[in-house]
Amino acid sequence: MDIFIEPIGKLINQFSRLPGVGKKTAQRYAYKIIGMTDAEAKEFAEAVLYCKRRVRYCNVCGNFTEEETCDICKNRAATSICVVKEPKDVIAMEKLHEFKGVYHVLHGVISPMDGVGPNDIRIKELLARVTPEVKEVIMATNPDVEGEATAMYIARLLKPLGVSVTRLAHGIPVGSELEYTDEVTLSRAFTERKSI
Amino acid sequence: MDIFIEPIGKLINQFSRLPGVGKKTAQRYAYKIIGMTDAEAKEFAEAVLYCKRRVRYCNVCGNFTEEETCDICKNRAATSICVVKEPKDVIAMEKLHEFKGVYHVLHGVISPMDGVGPNDIRIKELLARVTPEVKEVIMATNPDVEGEATAMYIARLLKPLGVSVTRLAHGIPVGSELEYTDEVTLSRAFTERKSI
Repeated sequence: MDIFIEPIGKLINQFSRLPGVGKKTAQRYAYKIIGMTDAEAKEFAEAVLYCKRRVRYCNVCGNFTEEETCDICKNRAATSICVVKEPKDVIAMEKLHEFKGVYHVLHGVISPMDGVGPNDIRIKELLARVTPEVKEVIMATNPDVEGEATAMYIARLLKPLGVSVTRLAHGIPVGSELEYTDEVTLSRAFTERKSI
Repeated sequence: MDIFIEPIGKLINQFSRLPGVGKKTAQRYAYKIIGMTDAEAKEFAEAVLYCKRRVRYCNVCGNFTEEETCDICKNRAATSICVVKEPKDVIAMEKLHEFKGVYHVLHGVISPMDGVGPNDIRIKELLARVTPEVKEVIMATNPDVEGEATAMYIARLLKPLGVSVTRLAHGIPVGSELEYTDEVTLSRAFTERKSI
């Protein structure tokens, strides 16, 4: 006899598919669902289906949207394009309320180790967007090996088009301590020091 | 403008209702759902509804079951009843493969601070189950204040019925160190020391 009855075991399996969720956590989630009212559980399940059904990718920038084109692409001038790896990076940038341009979501980064080449991410689409009215392309991929390589690769393609290509600054995180900063970061912070 | 579009925001809210899940984790879960195929998302949502629809409480012991009476109650002799707070405690006990009796799930413990009295948990139902054929009732509520109080309260009710009432042993957890054992536990371990 299985320890869990079938409907509970099934739900635990489904919850286990979520990132970072093991059997024990999935079990807690399943118990929470069982403890909900019927209406609450229905609302939960419907939110999953509703989200899956409604959310699509913007045909311009590749970010999540409910329509053909996302609100950002519709309402902002495309003079400055911020290139990010994933839709969640758009959220991170938007929380700043500082960048007023548009985005381009690559949906991945070049990573030969994982078999991801330049044609597997949305680089072609980016090049097509870089018209003369675009003044700046900000490379905001992650500061890891793949993110750096992708940023450099795209920068090389864009420069002949006469657009200014920038990269988010590397350096010591605000509020951290020199002592605990890793050597690569500290070295970058040193090399890229600025006059004050 | 909200940072999240409505279907994503809704799903994040639903995931935030799960125990220990904050906005950030809920967001990761939502992205995982969006990244699933339609079939996978459907399977996920259906597992929630299926579980909620199928799982009920055993009319004897109060554990989760798909039928009127659970498999444990149907297949085992009720000579020994293990009393636990919640269905998940049944799972913990069953994993041992040592206890061969039946369970009784209280669905809570007496906790005046939270307004939970003896009539709010399944004590009446337990008393009704203690027939002369029951030889032992094992109190397996948690070793915290409420669990202890509940165990003592039930033990006092059961003793006049002539049944043997036992309690899980307290002591130093196996594999831990004396130095790091809290004083209350160490004191209990000392008081309840056994000849070897």
